[in-house]
Amino acid sequence: MLMKEETKLLKNKIGREVPEHIEGLGELKAYNGPFDFQPEKRKFGRKISQVLPGESKLLNSIEDAVVKSGLKDGMTISFHHHFREGDFILNMVLDVIAKLGIKNLTLAPSSLNGVHEPVIEHIKNGVVAKIITSGVRGPLAEAISNGILDTPIIIRSHGGRARAIEAGDSQIDVAFLGVPCCDEYGNANGYSGESFCGSLGYAKVDAELADKVVLITDNIVEYPNVPASIVQTDVDYVIKVEAIGDPKGIVSGATRYTKNPRELLIAKYAAAAIEASGYFVPGFSMQCGTGGASLAVARFIREKMIEKDIKASFALGGITGQFVEMLEEGLISKLFDTQSFDLTAAKSIGENPNHYEISASFYANPHNKGCAVNKLDIVMLSALEVDTDFNVNVITGSDGVIRGASGGHCDTAAGAKLAMIVCPLIRGRIPTIVDKVNTVITPGETIDVVVTDRGIAVNPLRQDLIERFKKAKLPVFTIEELKEKAESVTGKAKPIEYGDKIVGIVEYRDGTIIDVIRQVK
Amino acid sequence: MLMKEETKLLKNKIGREVPEHIEGLGELKAYNGPFDFQPEKRKFGRKISQVLPGESKLLNSIEDAVVKSGLKDGMTISFHHHFREGDFILNMVLDVIAKLGIKNLTLAPSSLNGVHEPVIEHIKNGVVAKIITSGVRGPLAEAISNGILDTPIIIRSHGGRARAIEAGDSQIDVAFLGVPCCDEYGNANGYSGESFCGSLGYAKVDAELADKVVLITDNIVEYPNVPASIVQTDVDYVIKVEAIGDPKGIVSGATRYTKNPRELLIAKYAAAAIEASGYFVPGFSMQCGTGGASLAVARFIREKMIEKDIKASFALGGITGQFVEMLEEGLISKLFDTQSFDLTAAKSIGENPNHYEISASFYANPHNKGCAVNKLDIVMLSALEVDTDFNVNVITGSDGVIRGASGGHCDTAAGAKLAMIVCPLIRGRIPTIVDKVNTVITPGETIDVVVTDRGIAVNPLRQDLIERFKKAKLPVFTIEELKEKAESVTGKAKPIEYGDKIVGIVEYRDGTIIDVIRQVK
Repeated sequence: MLMKEETKLLKNKIGREVPEHIEGLGELKAYNGPFDFQPEKRKFGRKISQVLPGESKLLNSIEDAVVKSGLKDGMTISFHHHFREGDFILNMVLDVIAKLGIKNLTLAPSSLNGVHEPVIEHIKNGVVAKIITSGVRGPLAEAISNGILDTPIIIRSHGGRARAIEAGDSQIDVAFLGVPCCDEYGNANGYSGESFCGSLGYAKVDAELADKVVLITDNIVEYPNVPASIVQTDVDYVIKVEAIGDPKGIVSGATRYTKNPRELLIAKYAAAAIEASGYFVPGFSMQCGTGGASLAVARFIREKMIEKDIKASFALGGITGQFVEMLEEGLISKLFDTQSFDLTAAKSIGENPNHYEISASFYANPHNKGCAVNKLDIVMLSALEVDTDFNVNVITGSDGVIRGASGGHCDTAAGAKLAMIVCPLIRGRIPTIVDKVNTVITPGETIDVVVTDRGIAVNPLRQDLIERFKKAKLPVFTIEELKEKAESVTGKAKPIEYGDKIVGIVEYRDGTIIDVIRQVK
Repeated sequence: MLMKEETKLLKNKIGREVPEHIEGLGELKAYNGPFDFQPEKRKFGRKISQVLPGESKLLNSIEDAVVKSGLKDGMTISFHHHFREGDFILNMVLDVIAKLGIKNLTLAPSSLNGVHEPVIEHIKNGVVAKIITSGVRGPLAEAISNGILDTPIIIRSHGGRARAIEAGDSQIDVAFLGVPCCDEYGNANGYSGESFCGSLGYAKVDAELADKVVLITDNIVEYPNVPASIVQTDVDYVIKVEAIGDPKGIVSGATRYTKNPRELLIAKYAAAAIEASGYFVPGFSMQCGTGGASLAVARFIREKMIEKDIKASFALGGITGQFVEMLEEGLISKLFDTQSFDLTAAKSIGENPNHYEISASFYANPHNKGCAVNKLDIVMLSALEVDTDFNVNVITGSDGVIRGASGGHCDTAAGAKLAMIVCPLIRGRIPTIVDKVNTVITPGETIDVVVTDRGIAVNPLRQDLIERFKKAKLPVFTIEELKEKAESVTGKAKPIEYGDKIVGIVEYRDGTIIDVIRQVK
């Protein structure tokens, strides 16, 4: 929507100007601290519907499923992103919906990728009117940043999405869920079949709460296909199609270790900081990203664990083959897997009972009775930018265009005892540490440490860590000093020129608004 | 309550007089056929509550948990019956509640046993005002049948209980769930520890839907205790006590085969009927009871499966060691276990991934998107009485006193293609086949076959089975002929003398009223 005079903006707790109301989205609450908002609702309940003995759930086509589901103009449909760049489902379903003439839908997938470029056409033809997602990449992201939608998209974290669905903030009318393996009654898993993806953690939330649940598979197996990640009692229809995805785009092969000396230096500092933090003790828990530096940290940590005979209680989040190896070596007791990042992880989850599949709600929903991030000691997170208030941007690039995802960033930062950003001080000619990040995904008050190749900054809220790191002779600087180091090389970054139109609303995990994304000029 | 002139009674579809309204219970709907009632509600949602990082769920005592849970006069509390006659939890918690002076509660356990005799005192002292349960046995059952409660108890099947909780018909304020193994954050299973019981299938429903969930254990293990049957995101508090049950009462040892010639004869006929039914084909599914005859049928069926090289897709329900052996032999692909009946089953569920734990909702809730009983081919069920309309009583004895449980009886009968009652024609000097059963738990229109030691009766609705059985030269009689055979030995049973007071309401699985239980004189 165009910013009209009357759209009132409020400064939220971290000084970002956010609207109180957006046409098409309704009233909005401003962010006011990571645990300020108190939920008061009851959990949302989907429409009860029964399937009688003898009734078949198998349908012949996606078209049949769309018709039978009762999908109508203005409703909300959802998808999961476990197939990443290999996903065929979302485009297939939208094409069918377009053909049926259904319009004005809200598209609420757990995330969007480059492969979803055809959504642009479905926005233009009126099928898709709104988007709620963790992130967007590629041409679709550019189109959104250029203002293709009348209503801003909503960016939600993985935990925030689960929260919103459970609270009824996002009511999903029909979930179309691709599954690599399923029986004709809807018992499905993600680790069998040609199109295997491992965990179905994001999809589990939709399966439990959408009014109608449609499974789409290319691999029907004998009933009963249990243990199952999605169960028959949650599924209305099952459809077999030729292919649900391109295996090459779904899982990547084994992860290779970085040889980039800058990444290795960041990793060395990060590992030393973890060792000195006081959290590296028997029974500790951790989450790592999949970037080169994060994976290298995990490798260094592994060596220190062996050296000091320290074992971890669990590793969390997107799981890589590296963690699977540590599970198998006995260095980690359990893996909590909401998304399997590579071939090794995607296979292990079906074979090792200690590799435990969790839903996005179990992973990170702040409004259940205790999600897994609450029990996290150490999380290593990436950043496109960090500012001197320790706010982190992982969604918009240096040109202001959307190019990432909120993911579990703000969720894990809020939960973990030690939330550590690992990033280069400079990328290309662009500083990572800045005065103000373009877009805040994660508030600085939940970030403890920023580790770069040129030194470590500790949030002043964590005087305890500053002392520990200094004692360990780590290269500790203030965040302002790191920023100046960066600027001394790159000069001050030119501010991005934005238009007035708000093209995205960034929700914090509790549903309050932490920032907005504006149209790029 | 006393039956007043104004309590209007209606005849339901099977001719039983049931009230339209009961003080303290509200409006009631009369049973009108097994799939007549159409659910229209949304699924119930419990109060959303959050547990913050760093918050502990561990409390020192049940008293602390009762206080912290916010339990107040008039609320509803629930328990599971997986500890059977070994349960310590229900009595412990009620004692604490009584001490705290909380009154007028609705007690809504999944079932009640002889060990729960002390509830009588808590009815007398005003702590317990209403009871909703699958069944009651022993002195408490006698007291209820004698009119100790002002409001009738509600008898629900296992599927009906899950349905009622999911529909919000029974809102559980606080669930107190005993668990044999659990971490301090609420991840629990039923198969580890001294007090192991196997499946926690009934408890899973309460854990998902009660506003507050309290786990009580005698065995706290390291976090994270996953895979888990009850998960941290559903649990508010965890308490460690000395003992949650008496292992001797929780699981029985290995099941012994009957040598009773009458039971063996019933089993022989039943196995022959199954073989002739047309349902004994590769991929068939079955559920058995735990009575001597049922277990003997399973043994005969096993032999026929080996002989004919027929394998079952799954076995369902209360699982015994016999089915575990057949799983291990490869004769059955999967076990769906909502309650583990013996030592072998209770251990196997933690070890064999094909021995799959299911909730009572997955098992038998008619109002989800397809419960397991819908996929059942053959179920063998017991009966205290069967009448000439094939209605079955499993709740009241020949003296009219409550002495059993609804269990999964009407659920499986409604779901299975072949619902077979196995019972002796006469018990002691009492006929099993009668004109009118004392109390209807399962409507005759869902029962296909009655197998006795003196012959087999087939529901006239199933002419196909009558033909098949006659072709197989089975001893087929009409149900009236079986009744006459019984009466020719015993004479007509003297009708039970009841008072006017209704002491129990029998709900069919869909929530409609199929019968009432009256006070015994």
